[in-house]
Order: sequence, then C-alpha cells, then structure tokens
Amino acid sequence: MLIGRFWLGRRVFYGVVYGDEVAEVSGSIFRKFRITGHRQPLSALKVLPPTQPIQIWCPGLNFLDHLSYAQSVLGEKMQKPHHPEPWLKARSSLIGYEDKIIIPRESGGEVHYEGEAVAVIGRTCRRISPKDAWRYILGYTCGNDVSERVWQKTDHSFWRAKGSDTFCPVGPWIQTEADPLNMEMVVKLNGREVQRANTKDMIFSFAEVISYITQHATLYPGDLVFSGTTATTSAMKAGDIVEVEITGIGTLRNPVVNEA
Amino acid sequence: MLIGRFWLGRRVFYGVVYGDEVAEVSGSIFRKFRITGHRQPLSALKVLPPTQPIQIWCPGLNFLDHLSYAQSVLGEKMQKPHHPEPWLKARSSLIGYEDKIIIPRESGGEVHYEGEAVAVIGRTCRRISPKDAWRYILGYTCGNDVSERVWQKTDHSFWRAKGSDTFCPVGPWIQTEADPLNMEMVVKLNGREVQRANTKDMIFSFAEVISYITQHATLYPGDLVFSGTTATTSAMKAGDIVEVEITGIGTLRNPVVNEA
Repeated sequence: MLIGRFWLGRRVFYGVVYGDEVAEVSGSIFRKFRITGHRQPLSALKVLPPTQPIQIWCPGLNFLDHLSYAQSVLGEKMQKPHHPEPWLKARSSLIGYEDKIIIPRESGGEVHYEGEAVAVIGRTCRRISPKDAWRYILGYTCGNDVSERVWQKTDHSFWRAKGSDTFCPVGPWIQTEADPLNMEMVVKLNGREVQRANTKDMIFSFAEVISYITQHATLYPGDLVFSGTTATTSAMKAGDIVEVEITGIGTLRNPVVNEA
Repeated sequence: MLIGRFWLGRRVFYGVVYGDEVAEVSGSIFRKFRITGHRQPLSALKVLPPTQPIQIWCPGLNFLDHLSYAQSVLGEKMQKPHHPEPWLKARSSLIGYEDKIIIPRESGGEVHYEGEAVAVIGRTCRRISPKDAWRYILGYTCGNDVSERVWQKTDHSFWRAKGSDTFCPVGPWIQTEADPLNMEMVVKLNGREVQRANTKDMIFSFAEVISYITQHATLYPGDLVFSGTTATTSAMKAGDIVEVEITGIGTLRNPVVNEA
C-alpha cells in the first residue's frame, strides 16, 4: 500500500494512492485507520513530506563503496565501521516532492545529491533488538541527503552541510510492502543516471541501525531513518532536476534553484 | 513575567507564575495571549518543559575558560572560535523540572552536568542580523547539557553523548524580562556549588549565535538555543541532585538515577 500526505485547499490529509487517484483515510496511519470512499485526483493535490517527524536520523557511512569518497570529503582516514555512527539531520531542512532545493548564497557550489532509501518508524520504540526492529517500521520512502561538501569538511558538525533549509527532500509517499533487503535506488540528474545502489549492500540493515539508535534514543511514529549513501556524488546547479527513484515506491523529484 | 507549561489532571496549559500560584493563559504565548482569572496552586501542578521545540541548538565552544577542558575531552587541539559551531541536541532527550536524568547502562560513569542559560525563540526567523535577533527571543530559561564524556570523544557525532534520552533537562519556566548580557548561572550538585558563570562572558552572544544559525536554518517558535558551558565539569552518580540556578529565572532541579 502507498500512503501519502496531501494538501488540498485548506485541508491536509493522509491518503492511499491508487494510480492516478488518492483515497482519503480517516484515523491515524500509525494506529488504526480506515480507507474512506472520498477519492481525489492525484493531479489536484500537493504532495507533502509523508510524515512530520520528531527527528531525522542518518547512520553514518553505511555502504563500503562510499568509504574512499567519504575519506576524500572529510579529509581523514576511515575504516569499515563496526557499528553505525548515527547523526541528526536538521528537522527544519525537510521538504517534499517537487519542492525546490535551494543552493545557499554562501556555498561555493559543492551542493551534492545523495539518493537514499528511508525507513518510516511506525511505533514508539526503545531498546529493541535488530530482530524486533522490523516490526516498528511502517514502510519506506525515498530521500535525498543533500550535502554541501566544503562545509561538511570544515564545520565541526553537519548542521548546515546537511541541515541547511531544503536539504532534506523526502517522499513522495510510504510503501508499506517493500522488501527492505532488496530495494534498488537510482538517482537521475536531468534524466541521466548518476547513482545506483541496492539496500542489500547496506553494511548495517535498517533493523540494525534502528536497534542501535534505540539503545540510547527513543524513536517515535513518523521519525525517519536514512539508509546512508553509496559510491561518489557530484554537484547540482540551478536549473537541474534531481530524482531519487526506488522500484516499487516511486520517484522523489526536486528542482534545484539558487537562493534569491 | 515567568511563563511556564503545566500539567494538571488531563490538561496541559501555559500559565504565568505569581509566587506560589499560576494564572492560566488563553491564546498562544508566541502570538497573542490573555492572563485569565483561573489560578492554580503551583504545588498541585507538574511542571513540563517550557516549550515543545522543533529543534534544540547548541553553539559549540562559547566560553574561553572551557577551551582547555574541551581539548582534554575531545583529545584535539582547539582554538578560540571565529564563529559559532552549531550542533543539534536530540529533541528526544528533552525532559523538564524534577524529571529524572537516567545514566545509561553502557556508560562507564562519566555523565557530566553542563549548566547553561537557554534562549527561547518567540517568532519564526531566517537570515536575521545579530542586532535584530534579540527581538525574536521570547525569554530565557535554565538548561543542563548533560554529556557522556567518553562517548563525546569516541563517537563521530554527539547523538548519544549529548542526546541520550533524559540528557536535556530544561526549565522550570521562561523569564521574559531577563538581561541576556548579565545572567549569573550556578550549578549545584547535592547543594554544593560546582560551576558558576555569567552570560556576559559568552564569546558569541545569544543574538550572534541565533543570527549565525538563521543564515542557513530557520528557527521556529519554541526552539531552544543553549548558551554553551564554562570551565570544567564533573560526573554525576545515582542519588545525586543537580540544580541549575539563574538569578531572576529560577532553579532547574533534577535527580540522577541509574538505568534499570
């Protein structure tokens, strides 16, 4: 099932996507809900970020083929990690499908895409095992961990390198029936494939990352957990269109503009 | 005026503190509100964290007398900073007055207090100047940037060193008339003074920190901005009572326990 969050006129609502139509749901998608008979054409709706998370978590390096590139970005020697190295992506950077990624005026131009799969937490969890963690995931969506490479190296934290406003596109909706161990992710820049990866190559699975985080921090319904990114990336510039596509979920599409 | 957030029976409400009594307010403390005639005895109320922030920001090193200690904790050479180095404290770690600080089972025992003043954002702001920033602050409260010193050194981010559940006590309430350039902060551990500082010694004032953050990230009503901490700190242990006291605001008091 594809569950999205939509805006129509003055209303915000969750709905289930059936092709070109969206059936509104009543109740909470995190507890109990019912699919109503109210249907809207998808084309009439603004697609919102699929949840309003308390927090957005990333796992640190999580694909081996990103290791040498990460070393070159951070300017320090890195090893294959023995456990996740979680960090918080700024909640204020979250945007949705078709929202603009804005390149900050102060950036020298090294604003890169990072196409990722994103797990959506379904229930509050703390101190859960990797085996149990799967049951706390509502589904999966597409994400773009937009990153300013110079700030990523020079600042002490990722607050603006990965947390500047608009640096966290997520969507378009949540697939509740994806296979988290075999999701094919493709990033296209202006229609050309620039990144391809599969969640089967994650060093730590979503369940392991989530279990690790919950040993110390509670996760809440709607919280987002990124997969980590792969290989190498390149800069986006104003006028570009960046797409993160995951088979069975959909395509997260965002135009890139310069800050006014 | 002292504005707090309280819990009574099944209700959560904002109120203005008058000595031993709290007058309920109607409306939003961030926009327009009215002090009603409904008064409750403070002793009957549970004091909640004064806001429900989207994000909790800290400035990085912000007192010169913390420099050499920070170096010893992080194990790296540090200079007097030329600008703030913001980072995000986990939203999920927020607790209030009298809530328990829980020492995680995996900690080797180096869980330290850091008494700080905290600015409460009153209005949404982006790209504001230091001069204008003061007008976006609703008031100030007390905070404790609880920190596990070993994890602070070994992990790549502060996610659990400063973001483990319960590591962010804030309160008891917001003082809207404090002088942000002259707030005296005292930390007491079991009644004994262990830390003393004044906001006049901040390397970057609240206005400068807030201005710096808003060059890249939007701040929202209720968001919290910590002052940074001073000098050296020490470990807390189960059974301790830690208090952060700021003249004219009040005392944030929290018991310390071991995780069950």
